[in-house]
Amino acid sequence: MAGKDPIIMREKDEMRNWTRSMRAQGHTIGFVPTMGYLHQGHLSLIKEAHKHADRIVVSIYVNPGQFSPNEDLSTYPCDFQGDCQKLKAVPGGVDVVFNPDNLYAAYGNSSLGSERNGEMREGRLVSCVENKWGMGHETWVRVENLEKGLCGKSRPVFFRGVVTVVTKLFNIVDPDVAVFGKKDYQQWKIIERMVRDLDFGIKVIGSEIVREQDGLAMSSRNVKLSPDNRQRALSISRALSRAKFDAENGQLNCHELINAAIPKIREAGGRVDYAEIVEQESLEPVETINKPVVFCVAAWFGDVRLVDNMEIDIN
Amino acid sequence: MAGKDPIIMREKDEMRNWTRSMRAQGHTIGFVPTMGYLHQGHLSLIKEAHKHADRIVVSIYVNPGQFSPNEDLSTYPCDFQGDCQKLKAVPGGVDVVFNPDNLYAAYGNSSLGSERNGEMREGRLVSCVENKWGMGHETWVRVENLEKGLCGKSRPVFFRGVVTVVTKLFNIVDPDVAVFGKKDYQQWKIIERMVRDLDFGIKVIGSEIVREQDGLAMSSRNVKLSPDNRQRALSISRALSRAKFDAENGQLNCHELINAAIPKIREAGGRVDYAEIVEQESLEPVETINKPVVFCVAAWFGDVRLVDNMEIDIN
Repeated sequence: MAGKDPIIMREKDEMRNWTRSMRAQGHTIGFVPTMGYLHQGHLSLIKEAHKHADRIVVSIYVNPGQFSPNEDLSTYPCDFQGDCQKLKAVPGGVDVVFNPDNLYAAYGNSSLGSERNGEMREGRLVSCVENKWGMGHETWVRVENLEKGLCGKSRPVFFRGVVTVVTKLFNIVDPDVAVFGKKDYQQWKIIERMVRDLDFGIKVIGSEIVREQDGLAMSSRNVKLSPDNRQRALSISRALSRAKFDAENGQLNCHELINAAIPKIREAGGRVDYAEIVEQESLEPVETINKPVVFCVAAWFGDVRLVDNMEIDIN
Repeated sequence: MAGKDPIIMREKDEMRNWTRSMRAQGHTIGFVPTMGYLHQGHLSLIKEAHKHADRIVVSIYVNPGQFSPNEDLSTYPCDFQGDCQKLKAVPGGVDVVFNPDNLYAAYGNSSLGSERNGEMREGRLVSCVENKWGMGHETWVRVENLEKGLCGKSRPVFFRGVVTVVTKLFNIVDPDVAVFGKKDYQQWKIIERMVRDLDFGIKVIGSEIVREQDGLAMSSRNVKLSPDNRQRALSISRALSRAKFDAENGQLNCHELINAAIPKIREAGGRVDYAEIVEQESLEPVETINKPVVFCVAAWFGDVRLVDNMEIDIN
């Protein structure tokens, strides 16, 4: 059955005022930030949000601030109309889709805005780290320890951009609860830490990874895989499942588990960026599994970089 | 006449809930963040806040995050009871005094909080930049261009700490309007930029400098001046007034104005940290006055570092 049409909002003030009026009426607001091209994984975040709030806001915004000039911002998949159709069909529905044009440029009558324009390509800000001033934007939020490892090593500006845009979205949407996917495990933990350290009055929820029938973790980037690489990419989830199985059956040596996993991905044609077993809170590498850990992998198949992970909780 | 007694709140949630209930009743909240030891300058900020909101929150919190280990956090003047008396007497009154114990330690059941304690001295966190983990706090907000010059040169962690604690206070107090003194001109401009860049729904107001009868800019640090240095420190405001007078009378060469001002402060026994004429928005140095500028000075008298400034608007 088709549900209600979400209200589409593009202006910050419209979004802000909506939340205030909802809250004044006693409602709670659940927020799911996305970059669009929605799949079942996103829809599961919305389903989770419905458990914690009675009004739901989904943002669709491809954040230039988290892409390096050499990354795939300009080719990031986009299908706004398709996304709206999917959101209309979500059980319980979505109240608002917040889809701003450019969160960095819309600085009103700032004396800087006019002088310092970021580079536009196809009418789109390519990256606000490409030029010195980034549309006059110069404020960045960093979670200085958690951002260092894992994806932070190969994507130096990534988490700075994610945390900064999430801070902006939190200030505009002003939700009670925000839901993030555990697939981007480090991102979830970094946002959790940022919310704690900056005293946001927001509850952060981590939602379980949603996988295809064959085990591939759902991602908007999966559509960019060739059929052949789509098949080869299964090596990641299979290697992780095997490691989890081995750990649960007594193999607690992380060095052994990692050295068993990496070849499986390489033999399938993957270029491994990292494969690390880290503590679930600090994300610091672990040698022997004696506390809750998570096995995190990032690997390239063709020109598509995929991330996946599995939590391992030995009782 | 004595006004109403402000409610003193120490807990983040109590503060947050108060704002929500006030807003639900249709009130607007004005916020004046301070480090206590209040003087007429602070009271003028409260007076300004009353023009923009009908409920007033004043925070009193000496922020360890903005002091370097070699700076004067441990000797920063403090008189909470005296402050409360002054606030009680403010025309129009103050509704809430937010006086948290430690905004960095109170991280509830964080897995890090217990392990990573900052150094305490006289029961007080000395500086959360003294140890690697800063009480487990690791999230910092930086306004990367505006923070570089003026006070940023000699106080490398200062603005990082100010912007971060103001972000925390904004998230806890959640005001409609916040008032900052123009005496800390760079701080005011940095907060204004941070609010713009992070999309806080808060109006930032800059309030004029309040001076003693003889022209000394009011500061909590003035009490630390010896009577002799208190007199010598007048050289700062006098040099600035003279420069403003000369500029208004045709001397638009900043090099000349600065070279006339510095000796006056040095001859009075001051050690000049900087004396710069900068553009009012970008805070970038100006050679010839052909737009609104501000003459900013920081100088040491004994072991007390004083800052002062004057805006120069040539028509």
